[in-house]
Amino acid sequence: MQNKLDKNSVGIVSPSSVEIKQSLELDCGKTIENFCLVYETYGKLNKEKNNAILICHALSGDHHAAGYHDINDKKPGWWDVCIGPNKPFDTNKFFIVSLNNLGGCMGSTGPNTLDKKTGNEYGPDFPIVTVNDWVNSQKLLADYLGINAWACVIGGSLGGMQALQWAISYPDKIRNSIIIAAAAKLSAQNIAFNEVARQSIITDPEFHDGHYNKFGVIPKRGLSIARMLGHITYLSDDSMRQKFGRDLREGKLHFGYDVDFQVESYLRYQAQAFVERFDANTYLLMTKALDYFDPAKEHGGDLSKALENTKSRFLVLSFTSDWRFSSSRSHEIVKSLVRARKSVSYSEIEANHGHDAFLMPIPQYLGVLKNFMENV
Amino acid sequence: MQNKLDKNSVGIVSPSSVEIKQSLELDCGKTIENFCLVYETYGKLNKEKNNAILICHALSGDHHAAGYHDINDKKPGWWDVCIGPNKPFDTNKFFIVSLNNLGGCMGSTGPNTLDKKTGNEYGPDFPIVTVNDWVNSQKLLADYLGINAWACVIGGSLGGMQALQWAISYPDKIRNSIIIAAAAKLSAQNIAFNEVARQSIITDPEFHDGHYNKFGVIPKRGLSIARMLGHITYLSDDSMRQKFGRDLREGKLHFGYDVDFQVESYLRYQAQAFVERFDANTYLLMTKALDYFDPAKEHGGDLSKALENTKSRFLVLSFTSDWRFSSSRSHEIVKSLVRARKSVSYSEIEANHGHDAFLMPIPQYLGVLKNFMENV
Repeated sequence: MQNKLDKNSVGIVSPSSVEIKQSLELDCGKTIENFCLVYETYGKLNKEKNNAILICHALSGDHHAAGYHDINDKKPGWWDVCIGPNKPFDTNKFFIVSLNNLGGCMGSTGPNTLDKKTGNEYGPDFPIVTVNDWVNSQKLLADYLGINAWACVIGGSLGGMQALQWAISYPDKIRNSIIIAAAAKLSAQNIAFNEVARQSIITDPEFHDGHYNKFGVIPKRGLSIARMLGHITYLSDDSMRQKFGRDLREGKLHFGYDVDFQVESYLRYQAQAFVERFDANTYLLMTKALDYFDPAKEHGGDLSKALENTKSRFLVLSFTSDWRFSSSRSHEIVKSLVRARKSVSYSEIEANHGHDAFLMPIPQYLGVLKNFMENV
Repeated sequence: MQNKLDKNSVGIVSPSSVEIKQSLELDCGKTIENFCLVYETYGKLNKEKNNAILICHALSGDHHAAGYHDINDKKPGWWDVCIGPNKPFDTNKFFIVSLNNLGGCMGSTGPNTLDKKTGNEYGPDFPIVTVNDWVNSQKLLADYLGINAWACVIGGSLGGMQALQWAISYPDKIRNSIIIAAAAKLSAQNIAFNEVARQSIITDPEFHDGHYNKFGVIPKRGLSIARMLGHITYLSDDSMRQKFGRDLREGKLHFGYDVDFQVESYLRYQAQAFVERFDANTYLLMTKALDYFDPAKEHGGDLSKALENTKSRFLVLSFTSDWRFSSSRSHEIVKSLVRARKSVSYSEIEANHGHDAFLMPIPQYLGVLKNFMENV
């Protein structure tokens, strides 16, 4: 256990929970009242309350970003490589907040929590929330924590979209924004992958129009397919070649539909693990939040106009082998920031890991983050 | 109808069928006896019987490569842009043979035909056939047609693998080989995409372990998901952006899981059409033929050794925007041919259409094919 709780780990952590007793008007037109957000914090809020940073999670992420819940946990939180004493998001210096988003399935109000109005689980009736809605809900969390402005808001992938939206929605409440492996809007290809994932879940007979919990089942098959597909798009062709190549699991072909290749075995295993921890309705709404994100839309498609009133400094990062959110998507954000005459740094990190690179301990990547954070 | 039956069309065509009364030993160890192959021919076999070319189809293709079956057909055969009088595969000069492969679902012996031994439909008991098995079955078809050697064997994608295997298996029976948008073996990423497609079909409750016909159903959901996924990988990110962008079908977001974006509507439509025409067991075995293809394997992974005894001229083609079978996969074939001191021409065609480019009337592409065919 020594290495778990070493001097660079935040150690054992526990989630907190807050009931936000305010109503939140959502982009879909509905209003949500009295909702719960689960979050973790690492480090200490200083007296001036100006050292708080917010970590926003991606599609299948949650509030548990660093440390361990239990000494026996096999893995730390999902961004433990970045969060801790002397790490890029340094808990000696910063008070770090990481939450499970509204609509999530790890404790925050979402499809598998009770709707107090009806006494029933929300299920598929939970409204589709947007990146903008999340940012508004995170603002209420900041208010609750007594944080007037974030020193930095940070996220990768769908989390990066939230970091971008924060700068747009609350220019006076955010001093720095780090947008990693993200895009200002999804491409048709990205929407298409999400649609295949959704269709695989929705057409699973055990989905029951989203009321699967009532039937005591879960749409395992659909969620598995969605996860397997997602997984392929998070890795690069090259990293899959290096990791699996054409290696056979049992040294021979079976001329049947059981596992022949290692990569098949890996995908099935990943899917199985995911089905056990993630909720199908949440997965669906997260993909819609991705699809719908497009802050330039209300500015005639001109992102630089959407960014006009932002005041934060920006760091934009992309990875060479990421084809789900390629560097060219980050370039669009950077160009728009430059056109809007904002302070922006950009790095393209040489990495072989595909989209998943943003979770990896890549020295150049951690170095760029650390440098930027030293001036936060 | 004028334009359908113009001077560059092969016009109205009818498929033929042959029962091959020989036994074929398959790579899986099983033997298939007395099997039927459905094929079409365009142009005339000359007296010397040396002007025959073989067209090999890809995953979801069939024997109907050119012309129309009926004056009212909306679409011609799948490679009509390449096959006809004065087209690259010129029916004024060549006798063109196009077949539905063994294991197919368009008339050749396959999962949905009767096993004469048992009197039952083969269904999932139809053996998994390989590219090598197909080439052997095509050799028997050549024998039946009295063709001692093909002037050229041509194919795109999985069809290109057959064109490559022909040169290896029957060096004296093929004078030219055209390998388009193919690979000498699939990458882990490609196998992974195929595995997701297979899992979506196999886990569909209406698959019934492949005996769906007995139950009077088809695994529509699974086959739809497989096709939608396949479709995304046949197009380029760029072509999808140009074709659909983020266009909304009804001008607004619905905050639900019905179609929002045009690209979603397109995919669902394509999937629906595919389910009506294609057989799930055939789809499964075709993906396995792709996964298993690896002629270098029995030569310690050295493709140039596998190519050592080939005698044909080769034309290898790839397309700039094809990411499912990228140009680098064609480079591997070309380099191995060069190392083996074979006659090879290679062109990378500038095209925006992704993997599907091989079916498109791209002037540079048709020009390269035409030039090569003039010396066949």
